[in-house]
Amino acid sequence: MAVTLDAPRFKHKVAVIGSGNWGTTVAKLVAENTREHPDLFEEDVQMWVFEENVVIASDSPHYDPAVGDAPQKLTSVINTHHENVKYLPKIRLPSNVVANPSLLDTVKDTSILIFNLPHEFIGSVCKQIRGHILPSARGISCIKGVTVTEDKVELICDYISETLGIYCGALSGANIANEIANELWCETTIAYNTPPCDRRTEIGAAATNGGQDQQHRDSRGAVSKVQLTPLSRDYPPIDHAELRKLFDRPYFTVSMVSDVVGVSLAGALKNIVALACGFIEGHGWNMTAKTAVMRRGMLETIQFCQEFFPETIQEMTFWESAGWSDMIVSCTSARNWRCSKLAVERGVSVYEVERTELNGQKLQGISTTKEVMSFLRGRGVENKYPLFKAVEGIVDGTFKVENIPVLFRH
Amino acid sequence: MAVTLDAPRFKHKVAVIGSGNWGTTVAKLVAENTREHPDLFEEDVQMWVFEENVVIASDSPHYDPAVGDAPQKLTSVINTHHENVKYLPKIRLPSNVVANPSLLDTVKDTSILIFNLPHEFIGSVCKQIRGHILPSARGISCIKGVTVTEDKVELICDYISETLGIYCGALSGANIANEIANELWCETTIAYNTPPCDRRTEIGAAATNGGQDQQHRDSRGAVSKVQLTPLSRDYPPIDHAELRKLFDRPYFTVSMVSDVVGVSLAGALKNIVALACGFIEGHGWNMTAKTAVMRRGMLETIQFCQEFFPETIQEMTFWESAGWSDMIVSCTSARNWRCSKLAVERGVSVYEVERTELNGQKLQGISTTKEVMSFLRGRGVENKYPLFKAVEGIVDGTFKVENIPVLFRH
Repeated sequence: MAVTLDAPRFKHKVAVIGSGNWGTTVAKLVAENTREHPDLFEEDVQMWVFEENVVIASDSPHYDPAVGDAPQKLTSVINTHHENVKYLPKIRLPSNVVANPSLLDTVKDTSILIFNLPHEFIGSVCKQIRGHILPSARGISCIKGVTVTEDKVELICDYISETLGIYCGALSGANIANEIANELWCETTIAYNTPPCDRRTEIGAAATNGGQDQQHRDSRGAVSKVQLTPLSRDYPPIDHAELRKLFDRPYFTVSMVSDVVGVSLAGALKNIVALACGFIEGHGWNMTAKTAVMRRGMLETIQFCQEFFPETIQEMTFWESAGWSDMIVSCTSARNWRCSKLAVERGVSVYEVERTELNGQKLQGISTTKEVMSFLRGRGVENKYPLFKAVEGIVDGTFKVENIPVLFRH
Repeated sequence: MAVTLDAPRFKHKVAVIGSGNWGTTVAKLVAENTREHPDLFEEDVQMWVFEENVVIASDSPHYDPAVGDAPQKLTSVINTHHENVKYLPKIRLPSNVVANPSLLDTVKDTSILIFNLPHEFIGSVCKQIRGHILPSARGISCIKGVTVTEDKVELICDYISETLGIYCGALSGANIANEIANELWCETTIAYNTPPCDRRTEIGAAATNGGQDQQHRDSRGAVSKVQLTPLSRDYPPIDHAELRKLFDRPYFTVSMVSDVVGVSLAGALKNIVALACGFIEGHGWNMTAKTAVMRRGMLETIQFCQEFFPETIQEMTFWESAGWSDMIVSCTSARNWRCSKLAVERGVSVYEVERTELNGQKLQGISTTKEVMSFLRGRGVENKYPLFKAVEGIVDGTFKVENIPVLFRH
């Protein structure tokens, strides 16, 4: 039933939850776009900042002799000087990025929530804001990774979706925050499977039906437990075109896809492959050997997705920036790769490198490897994933790097 | 009709036509395998050497004071010292690699011909050996590239096939000859679409039918003009298993596929993308931008294959070493990439770099770009390939590198 829509009364209010290096970068580019599209978005973008005190160095252009070395609140420094001096220094933020120390105030009346904070904080944040957000809000998670236990694989965006009762997509790609903050061109992938109740032809109908969307096939293709509240027709619809307007910049090209599972899993499993590539290069093999391992790693990634999420996976997803491009960058310059390479070069375990090089931080690749292998073992299919299994073996000291080529023999 | 085969009377005689860096490397690994599989192959591998004189330096272990600085024939140096001192120095060849200065003697009674010489010599070599080879010989081309004119795209292996009246497959991958010669592990792809008359169940039947295979769908999926002579049952059959035994080494993992077109075109078109990546990096963009260009280049490659060879292309081919792996290596370290990067860094044309850096050699990527664009223009579809077109424009000075991201805007 096609219904002529009334003109929306409200614009979307956008908030970024998180203000690290990547969160601040995304706040910057989104705020540039809310200014360019005043028909769709409110200009101000709230950015939730976990408040802390900072001291402005005397050689900083933001140094104020009247304040001197006295600690200042990070939010007020950001709102005064339009720079996140702690997590994204030397990058001028648009003045419509508004640092907000209150999580609940940040999300109040917000219709588009962008989650961009470390994996380990997402549980606590979701619990705090549950019941305090618009029921028809929509989310985009910029957090890579999935939670894998022996029992199940849970996507971050599904966790957000189920905890908050809203639909949530994912942004992932071959992206390095500092480069994007400096407006060096790259591209990214946004996976968003527009809920049926939000589709343009449906909004009016659903709204006149007055109710909640009865069932939505969520990103996993299963019928979700989440009862979605349709987008109010007081707001412009949100689909691929609007999301592109919110995220795409001349220096940040967005491709839209619908396969949230593929994008999320590619972003997580590539960390296992990055460890493998570091081992390979640490052992003295070159680019040709590394590409062989990347290729096998990508094939095991696709196999994993197809084995456990057969309903929704689209093979073309792996051709996106969130697929091959992110794999290549992660296996060439990222932390998992660097640490595993160092481990082999030094003849120590990757745990030892984690301890000595990461200031107490943990290597994502190790926990992903462990979790994924435990999940596969729980299903008795670990031998179908020889590269993933070998990475676990190398991490644990039960498999030798020099035997990786043997995995590929016929 | 299943027929019990008599035991073969002959073993396959293998020859490598070409003895450069890559040809000698392939002769080495093939000769290691003929020794390991004496049931299938004659031990000696003939390697055709374009005869020339070499002088052995006095600090070489092969220096003979009795000979001194007198020029010696390259073939006799190879056969005496088991080293190709000119094109693959410091690599010990198995003694069953036999350098042969006579092209016709090299191919005499040879049932497996491996073509491994520069693109520009293949025409003359094929004309010389036509009529002098076993009619039931089979070929593998290690020569990357295709011949594209305004009218058609011709694969090297189809050219060999049609000129000699034999079936010919292709070997291609992320391979660097010196690394393989030093037994640093990598992998490769062999595309071989076993002709129906050679299939195990058919050999006896075809042989008893006594005749030529009436029609063979060649690598292009078209019914070939080539009238194949079936493999004689005096020889073991040749299919994927035997070819793997001939090429696969512990340091050189072979994947077998049937898509000769995809493997050949991926090996050729990647040179256009490598130029694009050099331009991108020369301009100051990093790995993230490069992966975006590689990805778009791969998508245009696949589109090209599907548009012009829809019958035979298998998308999985591009996941092979001859696909993504070769693309990554070519866009990271190969000559096209290096020269186009230098051109932008120096603010000169890539022709200028070709002239000053390559000692009279030509950049394959430039001719491939020109030929492919001329072919596309002849069909009026050049605008469906914006990246390829942009590379041509940058080469000719009519498109600016900094506008590459604009190609990807929506």
